[in-house]
Amino acid sequence: MTVAIIPVPGVPMIRPGDDLAALLGNAIETARVGLKPRDVIAVCQKVVSKAEGAVVRLDDVVASPFAEHLAGRVEGGKDPRAVEVILRETKRIVRMDRGHVICETRQGWVCANAGVDESNGVEAGTLTLLPRDPDASAAELCERLRTRFGVALAVVVTDTFGRPWREGLVEVALGCAGMDPLLDLRGRADLGGRTLHHTVVALADEVAAAAGLVMEKDSGIAAAIVRGVRYTPAAGGAAARLVRSPEFDLFR
Amino acid sequence: MTVAIIPVPGVPMIRPGDDLAALLGNAIETARVGLKPRDVIAVCQKVVSKAEGAVVRLDDVVASPFAEHLAGRVEGGKDPRAVEVILRETKRIVRMDRGHVICETRQGWVCANAGVDESNGVEAGTLTLLPRDPDASAAELCERLRTRFGVALAVVVTDTFGRPWREGLVEVALGCAGMDPLLDLRGRADLGGRTLHHTVVALADEVAAAAGLVMEKDSGIAAAIVRGVRYTPAAGGAAARLVRSPEFDLFR
Repeated sequence: MTVAIIPVPGVPMIRPGDDLAALLGNAIETARVGLKPRDVIAVCQKVVSKAEGAVVRLDDVVASPFAEHLAGRVEGGKDPRAVEVILRETKRIVRMDRGHVICETRQGWVCANAGVDESNGVEAGTLTLLPRDPDASAAELCERLRTRFGVALAVVVTDTFGRPWREGLVEVALGCAGMDPLLDLRGRADLGGRTLHHTVVALADEVAAAAGLVMEKDSGIAAAIVRGVRYTPAAGGAAARLVRSPEFDLFR
Repeated sequence: MTVAIIPVPGVPMIRPGDDLAALLGNAIETARVGLKPRDVIAVCQKVVSKAEGAVVRLDDVVASPFAEHLAGRVEGGKDPRAVEVILRETKRIVRMDRGHVICETRQGWVCANAGVDESNGVEAGTLTLLPRDPDASAAELCERLRTRFGVALAVVVTDTFGRPWREGLVEVALGCAGMDPLLDLRGRADLGGRTLHHTVVALADEVAAAAGLVMEKDSGIAAAIVRGVRYTPAAGGAAARLVRSPEFDLFR
């Protein structure tokens, strides 16, 4: 079955307190692509964070001495207050080198700068944080859009992450609702009739990456419909399941 | 613009020496989806490896003492000859723990078991290796398909990789031709009018992940057409550029 990745333009600049589910629903309606059962709505983290008020004004931040110290080590210089915000979002610093800080966030994600971001549509002098609970954000959007459009849907909240060893950034799933983020093929027969011992697909991450093809950073497209994905419906979903637990993680 | 990910069924079981470009072209013709200019053809590594004869019969392998030793440490046991094959493909062992071997391959990719695989359509008692030069494989397929169908195309050879910190596997680009695997947005204005300092998108990886949505491990779909991707045409392409050089790699 063909999978279609349909951009949803028309999500306006979001401000804290905006009703994202309503605005996203309007954009979907205006795009006239309709929604079909089992569509996955991908929406970028930035608009979710802004709607939820997960933003910080630099002027409201006082940098700690450690943040001052780190900021001084960044090539070209970095605002110590921005570093302070990053540290507040960080549970553990995974790597700190060559001007980069790779953090484990409170939510368990490992990414640069704990997901704190200053570019792309955010007002000057403010930073966006990751949503407090991206799965809850996804669940709320999913419920509201299901009710409005009357079809079974899934929602994936996406963010742009780097990866060790590989150049370039890709979209990954940060929040997920309505679908199992993992597709477990273990035990299914492969083409040779043998079983697939280790294959669990990070389906929500593949959906996020696919959505990234139309939600480019400079395009102003904050959402996309991914249609035709074979997923397992799930009440919760919970992208948190994509976080590898420490005991199975070779790279802690 | 909507991106379509169109499965291409009908690539037969490939054996060493098969003319993959011809068989893939036949499958595309049979699928009657046509090819449009700028289509990206995603094809899974396994069929490329098999066509190129990058397979090893276990009976032809003698395990070294080190391979014997490693095999004994794997939970449930592993054939020492398979470990020997993995070691021969390995430039550097990145992690070795809990029955897993994460390797840097000769090509520079970091992945489990150096990409050596025994499941999914491979004859019993044989292992597939990664293609010697996946970019060259992609370039040949690209050239042959362009000639046959008379349109400008790109080709991405995909493989299924795990990632640190995240559960589940995703398709990534191992070889690439006809398109720049990276989309460099640095310096372009973002929505707030400021510039995007660090955004280079791993476009070929997003294409691979998108193709993964229809090329599932148990589906027998070895190829897909990804239509509508905004990429920069490039003579070479060269997924090798997705390998992060040691001096920029925080995780060596």
